[in-house]
Amino acid sequence: MSDLTMSSFVFEDLPTDDVEAAERLWGGLTDDVRRLLDLGIRSRVDAERVARARALLQEAAGLLAQDAPAGPAGVHYNAHGRSWNWGNTVVGVRNAFAPPVRLEWGDDDVVRSAVDLGAPYEGPPGSVHGGVSALLLDHLMGETASAAHTRLTVTGTLTLRYVRPLPLGRVRMEARVSAEVERKITVTATIRPDEPGAEPAVEAQGLFIIPRWAYQPAADDGPTGIGSLD
Amino acid sequence: MSDLTMSSFVFEDLPTDDVEAAERLWGGLTDDVRRLLDLGIRSRVDAERVARARALLQEAAGLLAQDAPAGPAGVHYNAHGRSWNWGNTVVGVRNAFAPPVRLEWGDDDVVRSAVDLGAPYEGPPGSVHGGVSALLLDHLMGETASAAHTRLTVTGTLTLRYVRPLPLGRVRMEARVSAEVERKITVTATIRPDEPGAEPAVEAQGLFIIPRWAYQPAADDGPTGIGSLD
Repeated sequence: MSDLTMSSFVFEDLPTDDVEAAERLWGGLTDDVRRLLDLGIRSRVDAERVARARALLQEAAGLLAQDAPAGPAGVHYNAHGRSWNWGNTVVGVRNAFAPPVRLEWGDDDVVRSAVDLGAPYEGPPGSVHGGVSALLLDHLMGETASAAHTRLTVTGTLTLRYVRPLPLGRVRMEARVSAEVERKITVTATIRPDEPGAEPAVEAQGLFIIPRWAYQPAADDGPTGIGSLD
Repeated sequence: MSDLTMSSFVFEDLPTDDVEAAERLWGGLTDDVRRLLDLGIRSRVDAERVARARALLQEAAGLLAQDAPAGPAGVHYNAHGRSWNWGNTVVGVRNAFAPPVRLEWGDDDVVRSAVDLGAPYEGPPGSVHGGVSALLLDHLMGETASAAHTRLTVTGTLTLRYVRPLPLGRVRMEARVSAEVERKITVTATIRPDEPGAEPAVEAQGLFIIPRWAYQPAADDGPTGIGSLD
């Protein structure tokens, strides 16, 4: 199921305050790139303005490329249980495609998230791409299986049922653990428009697995804050 | 299954040459934004350079925003059977998150695509996000069900089996129609590293449906070039 080991996670001796300062710095840049991702789809300006915009973007890229090691961001953690996966497609603070998704862990065992999906998430005309619903639900369900980052899980199988189109705009998702037997955790989830009385557009069920090497039925002394391998 | 109708598709009286000129113009800008999406994750420059880069990005956004109507790109088509879905998350020419995926329709009934997945597609450390595999396979399978854009389909159900991690880098996908009964089309697909002898990382099966209003068993007089509603 997985060749991942704890060596995939990088320990970094960075105080949590510094992690959060870095997230503010780079999060601002990410907001700017996110706006460009959207405008790159919607803009109708003339070719001369496109050329001027491109020159500015290339100058900015030149600055950022002055120190940009090859390879992805990976997943890091510090000694205080803080982890960061800045490049993650769904939740990465430095990933301009990530809406980003923020999770709310409810007292009722339901994990929720609401997010705005605009032009970059389109599939059918005016609707959220069916694969984007799959992407977001996969992530939400994986985090749900990880029980608020107290255990590490990988996706086994994922089944999605597309019931009706999901219009672009604000959507909400819900997920909960529906069954759990040793290393196997079943999670169900839905995504729907964030409107009163809206019916689910996509219904999902996933089987998530705790890797054998990470299975500690009663222990809690592993690194925390890592959660789902999504 | 779907509230979409042909009115979701916008007829536009734009010669195909003009469509392609626009794709070259905006595709260039999209390449620049794609590079920024990547650098925004990988760069380690200092705060002063981040601030200078942000000023440039904001100036570029101001130019592009001078004419940028609200709303997504939608799906357009002209009188010559050319269609364009510039905002599409997976294949959109103007979507900087789209790798973009290009499909190869083989003579052997297999639809293939190979694509480079870098830092923005990360889930587990160093690996492609499981939801990204779902997103790409959903799209590829939908297009496969549409039989090279000769019929319109919507996703019914999608089942993904995660067999092993998929390292970031170049990956290849394959899909084929494995069964077809009237309006129901079953498609199977895989994604794996683009290396000789690589085993699939994710195996998928999808049920795709031709909406009742679009089902024309023997006719070919509908708008062409529209394909999967993904």
